[in-house]
Amino acid sequence: MGQVAWKALFLSLFDYKTEKYVIAKNKKVGVLYRVVQLSILAYLVGWVFVVKKGYQDTDTSLQSSVITKLKGVAFTNTSELGERLWDVADYVIPPQGESVFFVMTNLIVTPNQRQSTCPESASIPDALCEKDTDCLEGEAVVAGNGVKTGRCLKDRGSTRGTCEILAWCPVEKRSKPKKPLLGSAENFTVYIKNSIRFPKFKFSKMNVLATDNESYLKTCRYSQEHPYCPIFVLGNIVRWAGGDFQEMASEGGVIGIQIEWNCDLDKAPSECNPHYSFSRLDNKSAETSISSGYNFRFAKYYRDVEGVDYRTLIKAYGIRFDVMVNGKAGKFNIIPTIINISSGLALMGAGAFFCDLVLLYLIKKSNFYRGKKYEEVKSSSRKSLSSPTLNGNQSPDQLGGL
Amino acid sequence: MGQVAWKALFLSLFDYKTEKYVIAKNKKVGVLYRVVQLSILAYLVGWVFVVKKGYQDTDTSLQSSVITKLKGVAFTNTSELGERLWDVADYVIPPQGESVFFVMTNLIVTPNQRQSTCPESASIPDALCEKDTDCLEGEAVVAGNGVKTGRCLKDRGSTRGTCEILAWCPVEKRSKPKKPLLGSAENFTVYIKNSIRFPKFKFSKMNVLATDNESYLKTCRYSQEHPYCPIFVLGNIVRWAGGDFQEMASEGGVIGIQIEWNCDLDKAPSECNPHYSFSRLDNKSAETSISSGYNFRFAKYYRDVEGVDYRTLIKAYGIRFDVMVNGKAGKFNIIPTIINISSGLALMGAGAFFCDLVLLYLIKKSNFYRGKKYEEVKSSSRKSLSSPTLNGNQSPDQLGGL
Amino acid sequence: MGQVAWKALFLSLFDYKTEKYVIAKNKKVGVLYRVVQLSILAYLVGWVFVVKKGYQDTDTSLQSSVITKLKGVAFTNTSELGERLWDVADYVIPPQGESVFFVMTNLIVTPNQRQSTCPESASIPDALCEKDTDCLEGEAVVAGNGVKTGRCLKDRGSTRGTCEILAWCPVEKRSKPKKPLLGSAENFTVYIKNSIRFPKFKFSKMNVLATDNESYLKTCRYSQEHPYCPIFVLGNIVRWAGGDFQEMASEGGVIGIQIEWNCDLDKAPSECNPHYSFSRLDNKSAETSISSGYNFRFAKYYRDVEGVDYRTLIKAYGIRFDVMVNGKAGKFNIIPTIINISSGLALMGAGAFFCDLVLLYLIKKSNFYRGKKYEEVKSSSRKSLSSPTLNGNQSPDQLGGL
Repeated sequence: MGQVAWKALFLSLFDYKTEKYVIAKNKKVGVLYRVVQLSILAYLVGWVFVVKKGYQDTDTSLQSSVITKLKGVAFTNTSELGERLWDVADYVIPPQGESVFFVMTNLIVTPNQRQSTCPESASIPDALCEKDTDCLEGEAVVAGNGVKTGRCLKDRGSTRGTCEILAWCPVEKRSKPKKPLLGSAENFTVYIKNSIRFPKFKFSKMNVLATDNESYLKTCRYSQEHPYCPIFVLGNIVRWAGGDFQEMASEGGVIGIQIEWNCDLDKAPSECNPHYSFSRLDNKSAETSISSGYNFRFAKYYRDVEGVDYRTLIKAYGIRFDVMVNGKAGKFNIIPTIINISSGLALMGAGAFFCDLVLLYLIKKSNFYRGKKYEEVKSSSRKSLSSPTLNGNQSPDQLGGL
Repeated sequence: MGQVAWKALFLSLFDYKTEKYVIAKNKKVGVLYRVVQLSILAYLVGWVFVVKKGYQDTDTSLQSSVITKLKGVAFTNTSELGERLWDVADYVIPPQGESVFFVMTNLIVTPNQRQSTCPESASIPDALCEKDTDCLEGEAVVAGNGVKTGRCLKDRGSTRGTCEILAWCPVEKRSKPKKPLLGSAENFTVYIKNSIRFPKFKFSKMNVLATDNESYLKTCRYSQEHPYCPIFVLGNIVRWAGGDFQEMASEGGVIGIQIEWNCDLDKAPSECNPHYSFSRLDNKSAETSISSGYNFRFAKYYRDVEGVDYRTLIKAYGIRFDVMVNGKAGKFNIIPTIINISSGLALMGAGAFFCDLVLLYLIKKSNFYRGKKYEEVKSSSRKSLSSPTLNGNQSPDQLGGL
Repeated sequence: MGQVAWKALFLSLFDYKTEKYVIAKNKKVGVLYRVVQLSILAYLVGWVFVVKKGYQDTDTSLQSSVITKLKGVAFTNTSELGERLWDVADYVIPPQGESVFFVMTNLIVTPNQRQSTCPESASIPDALCEKDTDCLEGEAVVAGNGVKTGRCLKDRGSTRGTCEILAWCPVEKRSKPKKPLLGSAENFTVYIKNSIRFPKFKFSKMNVLATDNESYLKTCRYSQEHPYCPIFVLGNIVRWAGGDFQEMASEGGVIGIQIEWNCDLDKAPSECNPHYSFSRLDNKSAETSISSGYNFRFAKYYRDVEGVDYRTLIKAYGIRFDVMVNGKAGKFNIIPTIINISSGLALMGAGAFFCDLVLLYLIKKSNFYRGKKYEEVKSSSRKSLSSPTLNGNQSPDQLGGL
């Protein structure tokens, strides 16, 4: 090829090639296609852009920090503990004010436990015995509190008893107050301080209202009317989660406090506000006793004058609150905008494909249109081009027109 | 249809149908189209493939385990506590070395609290009284420490006093050392051990350098020069997060330590390294006193010789460190590669659509090209095909050519 | 334009325009195209729809709540502690039953530490001295337990000694039992209660089997045969994670318990079940001593009759268990279905583009087909249309046919 040919080749690069279309003057398919186009457009504009904000880049990797602080005191007067006042340091576990905190509302106290021998609790099947050989020395009681010493302890005159065990003695007696000891925890308040950050957009915010009115933040309580007040009454939280406080206080339970940040950063920062929701996380509907409620045991250790350890065992029932933060921020970005528009256009192609099917195979004159749409060329006979198949009589050879 | 017809139908399945194109020898639109094509190609290759690594399958569901261990001792000499040495077991709460840990740097100690009656702190508005009827018996002091006994305690000669309460007495006196007690915590070090796993790619790694030089790992300190040393000086962390250690130590605060793993698994595993960043999580800019700092109360319980409980209440100020790990790993995969290429091609279609608009409606000879692109067929008059509309005189009937 | 023209324009909106195709009777390319189409269809149906369930909307933002409860007692008899029984309140830290819990299996106890002066441990390099000036008064021992008093304490007759320090004295002696003290923790069980919720689909479930047979839930143990029993034997967990319990019990370690919920909500809720997996999170392969094992120090504080504080320091070795829950739920939704289908169709376009390349540039008669596919129009010479370039002799000017 000479220089001229190369030049022609180069110039041909800038010829614009455009698909050749056949206009089928068929109003039915035409209307159908317009309907399909409008539907896709409506979907693209209405759903993808307006509802789903497809023109935004989103950040879901939220950085969050939660600080919680409880307030409230409760007074109890029981035969076991006498007059006693409970404050934050007594009933919040752990004390650090993290995002998961537990409020003790009911408890079984077993004071003055020491390492010694005593009869195992009679409510444990494995500890029941009739003679010493039922209590194999050194064997741990299954689901029990200690190791068997090999003796069977019986009340005078009875034939059955329980194994003697080496344990923290005396063992816990299995009965808890039916009425929760700290039922007044219903009025305690918790202050939840949550600061978040969307690293992709370098946007930070706090759930505490930026207000000059400091006393508002000390006296307000979260409610429908005060949706941005960060102080919550425990009783309300439980009620909103669909629970009954006194019942949960007695048996224990787990409440989830969801904080959701759904921010449109194309708007003003003040429009980006947390939304709170509350749910019960320990499945109450499950009626099996093994899965309801929430409790755990812990001990306070003491040492007497002779240097011997003893402890107070506490089986604590109460409500655990899990503060869970999640969020999403969106901001205009050209890339997702382009991607969404072009995927919409690709969808238009799918719509055209569907209408083609109707035009070519479902309407009366489909044979005729098939002939028009598909132009047969055969390299063997050069004349084929100037006379494309004019009649509509060619059903079989174009059936594969997909 | 006979056997021949069926055979023809079957054969026609393997005819290749290709769109017919019209070559418009219009250099303006041609150049425009090439520019559009090149832009899309550049976007696809440059942004999607090189920057965003669109040829990779990604895994963002990181499994992470964090172990932290603090080292350091501080000596204090105060009138209240005397000479005292603080070690890890004293100032780290909780002691387990989890990803969230608190270093106590300042504290208000209220020793020897017992369950009894005493005057409420005068700084609590609800406890102020002038006569006994101001102190309703049995009512809890709002934001206070106990339950009112019904008596108003006044200093001799003064008309105002505070209600007597049943509480852990004496109540906390509200003043904390201005200078943080454990200011020397600035020099404490924390060793952060973080092992991660990307389950999708079965890839595990640790932030601890695989080195033979064991003493390096014992003596190094994280800094710009030692970006893979896992031992951090607390003072540096606070400084990098933009805080002042002594001030935070006095008031308390929350620091986030972000560990980011951004791994390209197509490269060698040694290229996959953590990147640390530090930020202050309790919003310092918020000037309201209710939302600054970080502190909590806890108590140590003792029992005296008579078996009566007493406690030491500690209001702890300090710095909470939240170690947050996130990460992303990518590895070549054919599926996202195909999807990205074909979405790029779909974008080309959108480009062609845009150039069509220019060709058919914006340039001078658009009428002519419209006539060429759209071939009108009418099933009623069979002759339409052999004489397509040759003149450019047909503006109205093709305007809907979208 | 008159009224007629406007009407024609309006009507033309409902003409259907369809791409004109050229049928190339070339079986090779035809078969190739069918193969490409079938591959794409197989990929779309097989991979996207069947394997990846592309017709479903997914929710990965799981809300999860984990409650853990350990059971088991261990008996130890050592010269140091005497006969002692360990129960849940003794060995689980923290006691709350959260998703991260630690089981103490080995410990170094340093009882009766008091604030006073004593020689630093000889195993700390910085504390070694030959004369008093080696021990700078007031300086903290690097990686040590206290602050130097300025005296160098030597044994009678030796030239080297250790600095005297002000600390919690006596300091910890550095040796731990080789055989883990609570090796029998291997038989302890942990009951893991996990309730999850997919907020998008308002679907909740628990890992505890909804069974009438309550005793099953009290006696079952998780295994291959009982995949839905929520009670795990610690020894089994460690074995499944690839560890050796006795060795981990001695040195400490971290085990991850992954609970994965992969739910197809188009099926019955009973088909949505958790899948458990276990892995060792502290990288054992790293041989450096600084990064193996898991331990931490904590103290129990006591007060003697004179009101002086003393403490028992415990260096606890043991196994930390991290329960990590993740999940994904899918449910049929029309939007992702449409998106996936249309992206598949876009892929078909890419396939056609590829076959075009073959047809127009790679096969023998490509010149001929190129002439057929591209119809050259020149606005300057009106005659070009009726005689499209018929010969195959036009290679250069269509090379840019991409």
